[in-house]
Amino acid sequence: MPHQPDPVTAKLAAYLVDAKPESLPAAVREEAVRTFVNWVGCAVGGSRHAAVVAALAALGPFSGPPRASVLGRSERVDPLLASLLNGISSHVFDFDDTHLRTVIHPAGPVASALLAFAEHQPVNGHDFLHALVLGIEVECRIGNAVFPAHYDIGWHITGSAGVFGAAAAVGKLLDLDAQRMAWALGLAATQPVGLREMFGSMTKSFHPGRAAQNGMTAALLAANGYTSSEQALEAKRGWLNVLSTEHDSQEITDGLGSRYEIAVNSYKPFACGIVIHPVIDACLQLRAREQLEPDAVRAVRLSVHPLVLELTGKTEPRNGLEGKFSVYHAAAVALCEGGGGEPQFSDRAVLDPAVVALRRRVSAITDPALQADAAHVEIALLDGRKLQLHVDHAIGSRHRPMSNTDLEHKFIGLSEDLLGQAPARRLLDACWSVEHLDDVAAIAAAART
Amino acid sequence: MPHQPDPVTAKLAAYLVDAKPESLPAAVREEAVRTFVNWVGCAVGGSRHAAVVAALAALGPFSGPPRASVLGRSERVDPLLASLLNGISSHVFDFDDTHLRTVIHPAGPVASALLAFAEHQPVNGHDFLHALVLGIEVECRIGNAVFPAHYDIGWHITGSAGVFGAAAAVGKLLDLDAQRMAWALGLAATQPVGLREMFGSMTKSFHPGRAAQNGMTAALLAANGYTSSEQALEAKRGWLNVLSTEHDSQEITDGLGSRYEIAVNSYKPFACGIVIHPVIDACLQLRAREQLEPDAVRAVRLSVHPLVLELTGKTEPRNGLEGKFSVYHAAAVALCEGGGGEPQFSDRAVLDPAVVALRRRVSAITDPALQADAAHVEIALLDGRKLQLHVDHAIGSRHRPMSNTDLEHKFIGLSEDLLGQAPARRLLDACWSVEHLDDVAAIAAAART
Repeated sequence: MPHQPDPVTAKLAAYLVDAKPESLPAAVREEAVRTFVNWVGCAVGGSRHAAVVAALAALGPFSGPPRASVLGRSERVDPLLASLLNGISSHVFDFDDTHLRTVIHPAGPVASALLAFAEHQPVNGHDFLHALVLGIEVECRIGNAVFPAHYDIGWHITGSAGVFGAAAAVGKLLDLDAQRMAWALGLAATQPVGLREMFGSMTKSFHPGRAAQNGMTAALLAANGYTSSEQALEAKRGWLNVLSTEHDSQEITDGLGSRYEIAVNSYKPFACGIVIHPVIDACLQLRAREQLEPDAVRAVRLSVHPLVLELTGKTEPRNGLEGKFSVYHAAAVALCEGGGGEPQFSDRAVLDPAVVALRRRVSAITDPALQADAAHVEIALLDGRKLQLHVDHAIGSRHRPMSNTDLEHKFIGLSEDLLGQAPARRLLDACWSVEHLDDVAAIAAAART
Repeated sequence: MPHQPDPVTAKLAAYLVDAKPESLPAAVREEAVRTFVNWVGCAVGGSRHAAVVAALAALGPFSGPPRASVLGRSERVDPLLASLLNGISSHVFDFDDTHLRTVIHPAGPVASALLAFAEHQPVNGHDFLHALVLGIEVECRIGNAVFPAHYDIGWHITGSAGVFGAAAAVGKLLDLDAQRMAWALGLAATQPVGLREMFGSMTKSFHPGRAAQNGMTAALLAANGYTSSEQALEAKRGWLNVLSTEHDSQEITDGLGSRYEIAVNSYKPFACGIVIHPVIDACLQLRAREQLEPDAVRAVRLSVHPLVLELTGKTEPRNGLEGKFSVYHAAAVALCEGGGGEPQFSDRAVLDPAVVALRRRVSAITDPALQADAAHVEIALLDGRKLQLHVDHAIGSRHRPMSNTDLEHKFIGLSEDLLGQAPARRLLDACWSVEHLDDVAAIAAAART
């Protein structure tokens, strides 16, 4: 008799159907609110990017009844299209949340689907936050089961695993029974999104958006009796075997309901690849401590984890997007401008003569003894002084998470130019109190211009 | 210096952009018309299936402006949704066309996208047929490059390769330049659809539909400047490497424009898995030749290719869908009813006491010496006579293709109960003359009830 795989799809579906919002620990709920605040800020901030404009121009003419908001913009579209567009804008700056173990960006697929769905069918904050936690739980656990093999093959795991999170979250709000929840997971499994080859083009941010849209589609189909496999994950020709060379399916079900992946979510203080964060952190600290002027700097010498130069070793970036992959630019702009937000990774910043001049005085060596969230920075001044600073754990890492105040600054920085100062503040306050809203659609409305 | 892969994405894009309808050989155009006739008949025939009803109920509320037809039905929806629904209905009977080398069902993803697009933007029959040929060329060549490894892993190749065909075909009608055509292929590559695990559920027919919708989405995005990789097929983390363990990328580009995969397309005379076709063919010939009555049959003994019992060895099917995977039912119902169409694979037929009684007198042995399109049938009669018939090449195989008259009978059988006799005939005539229409949308309109 052939070996029967562990029926993880059915187990996961049963857990999702039975889960109760009351059982969420307070710390999990708090982290879910932080995840949501960070996601809304990123989605509003990215909403004027050319990728969003192009997607809206291409697909807007096919939109159904315009019941859902494109965050940060004036347009309304149907909820399925809104989930795509908000997923694109929330990821396009590469500034959204990160599940460090799998490099999944958890909120994009799940929150994009949920908020758009909340404009289709009223949802209170209690249920909304619960569905957000469950969706993120599903995508990150499936990610845990196949990481790193699945990612190494070339799947952009945020899209390929994220689709399950969106299906589970919307399926929970649709109150699917266990069989239909399994079908929703099956319909998600058959629609994975995202090859890593797309990194560097607009298609990267398409991935969380399309995962949101595909997951919502899966849940809607299942709710209407569209049948699928009930062993979509573990079957011989199911998702785990087809999309990965290795997997541990116990990661999907062990300790369900007793530990939560959202509890280890992390948020970026800087709008660039996470490996550069320790260097930016060190440069900002040195600048503040010494009240440094860029003109006073003779040379900057960075010691970094080997991955930093492998991933972000561009010495002469030509535009904002390439700047995100240049540790030299990141150090120079942090010293010049005292920040590491999206403005510091714009075309303007990357081409600024003062930044370019300082960038060319930055050198870097790798030190395998350094952890990924550590860096050492030495600055030689023209007056002969030498400064140095060692960062053990960069701001935003799990050891030094961003505080709520940090998240507020990030949110306001991303949104107030687009929404106006008072509306941005009101939106932020609404996000912090999401759990207590009678109708979460109010947040989407407050994020429209 | 690392090995540079053959830039097949760019070569394919350049070919698609440069291709001219005038260069299509007459035989290729004729086969394209046959492919289209067969596809329209299947889509109309499947249009009342529960899968179509469920998908329409789930997604209809999100439809944009209803400019496109759901073939065989009265509803109109937006063209993207129409491409999904028509793709589902055209495959749900498993009665559509087959590219035998790859088991791709070529028309589903491509024609479903093209006809819906033709209701969005007027297209004449000349350009329409050319785009159909090109889309099928792209999906089948990409399929050739990865078959069988890609299919063996567990991908439903009709969806996973079909998305390229839809993107290329719609991209051609959108008159994309070479860069945007490459982006369209990139956006297709990142949205493969379909795990084989879904076979036996409604999700199987979702695959060609979603491939059509994803491919049209890819072309629309690219047309609006949504950027993607321009090496989506051959890159280290591109589609060929990520979705297959082996590939031969020369299959994609060798002889482009001089040989056409649509020229070897095939059409099913019977509404079930193609491996059973030789048995049905033999039973129908014996029944007609001997004017057999089922009650006169003592026993039926089948000799078949080994794959037949592996794929269709169900001895006691419980419903119509399971009947499609039972060579025993297929032989019995062919002898009882003199046919092998969708009515012979309905719940009614599978549960008919006379068919069940005869089915239990059917036995089968495998013969590795038989080709896949061959079968040997022996019938022992109650009066002691023994009959036998050997089929070398089943009707519908490349050696004995369905004639245009066969295709007409199939089309009418699928459509006249739904559309009415005269409208079905008018629709058929319009399909045969598709190449000469000023506006192909007329066919979609004629297929509405």
